[in-house]
Amino acid sequence: MVDGWVTGDDISAWEQRFRAALINSITGFKPVNLIGTKDQSSGHNLAIMSSVVHLGASPPLVGLVIRPDSVDRHTLRNIRTHGCYTINHVTSGFYPQAHQTAARYEDEVSEFTAVGLTPQYVEGFDAPFVGESPIKLGMTLVEEVQIKHNGTHFIIGRIDHLYIEPGLVSEYGDLDLARAEVVALSGLDRYFSANFLGKLPYAKP
Amino acid sequence: MVDGWVTGDDISAWEQRFRAALINSITGFKPVNLIGTKDQSSGHNLAIMSSVVHLGASPPLVGLVIRPDSVDRHTLRNIRTHGCYTINHVTSGFYPQAHQTAARYEDEVSEFTAVGLTPQYVEGFDAPFVGESPIKLGMTLVEEVQIKHNGTHFIIGRIDHLYIEPGLVSEYGDLDLARAEVVALSGLDRYFSANFLGKLPYAKP
Repeated sequence: MVDGWVTGDDISAWEQRFRAALINSITGFKPVNLIGTKDQSSGHNLAIMSSVVHLGASPPLVGLVIRPDSVDRHTLRNIRTHGCYTINHVTSGFYPQAHQTAARYEDEVSEFTAVGLTPQYVEGFDAPFVGESPIKLGMTLVEEVQIKHNGTHFIIGRIDHLYIEPGLVSEYGDLDLARAEVVALSGLDRYFSANFLGKLPYAKP
Repeated sequence: MVDGWVTGDDISAWEQRFRAALINSITGFKPVNLIGTKDQSSGHNLAIMSSVVHLGASPPLVGLVIRPDSVDRHTLRNIRTHGCYTINHVTSGFYPQAHQTAARYEDEVSEFTAVGLTPQYVEGFDAPFVGESPIKLGMTLVEEVQIKHNGTHFIIGRIDHLYIEPGLVSEYGDLDLARAEVVALSGLDRYFSANFLGKLPYAKP
């Protein structure tokens, strides 16, 4: 059990699955996104990730951490090959299907078909969106950075296509994620819906 | 209004504050963390950020995106000077104070004092934790990466100290963020609490 203060040496000594579960949840709530890519073997690949991070609004840039393991590598290879990918939000209506895309399917099996989600294409853009998703981003790869310390890849993309379901954006640009029924993730496998607490004013001294 | 599909050119044409609000919320729910650093002018600096991302469990690495603007730069300078910083989770009990740390206080004013949060030190570690926080990470800087495309800094740190309030971690390593009353953020200023939906099994074909 972990109650109170521990050190890095304590963390290293934890049982491997316990450590993976706890350290994967130690940063707080995470976004849940399906990454869609064109794939030579299966036609279209879909992978759940929780490592998308805002990098800037002008130009609109989004970062994505990809681990150096075999499932994620399909996504990484496809992004490098085609220079584009999609980021699709996951809702309470289909989060079990989204989670299931993490299974290690054979190369020729598309996760879209395996889990029952609908590939959707936009003319002139070479990666599949998720039809069921209320918020979808079409990304162009602009930069790739290697994290030396653990071999992780940090993918930087620009938003070149964006779909938002009608009725979700206010006149101020607020996007109503709760109304969209978008979920959040803790750790590797615990899903949450969100309750609006409040909007705070711009902070001044 | 944004209803349906738009392109990158449409996004560039949006009014600046509208674009900032919407693009800051376009990645989904974000973690809310207070970054604590030792500061030459104020003693201890505290800054709210929502760009922390999991990089790996062994070694336990966490990434942090820091924008090239003036408020965040204090945090960046302090991390570079001292080689360490803290990441503290924010709860529904003190999220207004956490939000207020974003104000541009004079250099000699500590945000801890200005907003009414308690600096807490661990022997041998040169950055302040937030006393009120139920989950606190003491980070050692291990790598810094520049994102060429927009001048953003990506800070990679290793967890060397970790505090978790008693009763939050299960025997499997699940961390109960909802019980800890940890909040999530959408965009720049909209805070949410979380409802547990379910824990899903490890995905197999």
